[in-house]
Amino acid sequence: MPETVELHPVIAHRWSPRAFTDERIEPQVLRSLFEAARWSASCFNEQPWRFVIATKDQPEEFQKLLDVLVPANQQWASQAWVLGVTVGKTTFTHNGKPNRYGLHDAGAALASLATQASSLGLQAHGMGGFHHDKAREDFGIPEDYELGAAFAVGYVDPGEVPPATRTRKPLEELVFGTEWGKAAL
Amino acid sequence: MPETVELHPVIAHRWSPRAFTDERIEPQVLRSLFEAARWSASCFNEQPWRFVIATKDQPEEFQKLLDVLVPANQQWASQAWVLGVTVGKTTFTHNGKPNRYGLHDAGAALASLATQASSLGLQAHGMGGFHHDKAREDFGIPEDYELGAAFAVGYVDPGEVPPATRTRKPLEELVFGTEWGKAAL
Repeated sequence: MPETVELHPVIAHRWSPRAFTDERIEPQVLRSLFEAARWSASCFNEQPWRFVIATKDQPEEFQKLLDVLVPANQQWASQAWVLGVTVGKTTFTHNGKPNRYGLHDAGAALASLATQASSLGLQAHGMGGFHHDKAREDFGIPEDYELGAAFAVGYVDPGEVPPATRTRKPLEELVFGTEWGKAAL
Repeated sequence: MPETVELHPVIAHRWSPRAFTDERIEPQVLRSLFEAARWSASCFNEQPWRFVIATKDQPEEFQKLLDVLVPANQQWASQAWVLGVTVGKTTFTHNGKPNRYGLHDAGAALASLATQASSLGLQAHGMGGFHHDKAREDFGIPEDYELGAAFAVGYVDPGEVPPATRTRKPLEELVFGTEWGKAAL
């Protein structure tokens, strides 16, 4: 067998582009992205993820989302059809106790959204670079919700390809046996 | 168009079973699960995710992982071929500053792993119920890494089907416009 087993195409083809076309994402396609997020796994099935979003069909709301991004992200993300931020609930709804998996599970939900996007010829690009306090205030995000990532979704500009510099650490530095730092694979 | 657009099968077929067969996961298949995690998106491409794992080929290490789970999870997870815990680095490697996306991105990586598993007829089941302090001590997890989720991966017992009670909140409670609580879809 080859050294590296093939990834499923929807995973292998996912990446984070910085150039989108202004092609409309049809409402039912958009909905399917959040359906993918919705069916993610979460601790105690709390489903702590929430999404604040706007599309280019809503210029005023879209601008509000654009306004919370840092300038370097505004530049390219302004092209995308959808902008959003993810939010993770920090408490369990059934007993009010702290849930340390709020952001963890919101991250998982965003990954599922990105996979579904990739399967439909779209790409989602997550961003840490946005003004969390401004987003909380502008969108009325309650105190028991933690800000996650901003994200842009759209059809990728045909001239845009994954950068040759797209790199990852080797598995040997990421997957250990029960002794920390000792490669398991 | 139908009310709910179809999810990609690798997402639609992912679930969290509690009954696995003891069928071996071939090393290259196992490796592909972590390849999927490896190519996840992360803030500044930090790749904060780490995995501590053991398979049934390594009875001693497998037992160590089983020992950190709470009894209710030990019962069913003992059948799985692989057990593991995810870990998220809490600082950026390039400047040592805090990275608030450690667990967020580890959650995303685990979701990618689960998607790849689902595409191969396997399932991954994440667990919050494990002893974090014991895991940190037993596996020598450094201070600047935060414990994420435990997880089991295996081939699903053919008699096991997704529970009829598998439920999620409606999209209307999860996806908002720029006004919190006001449904966007």
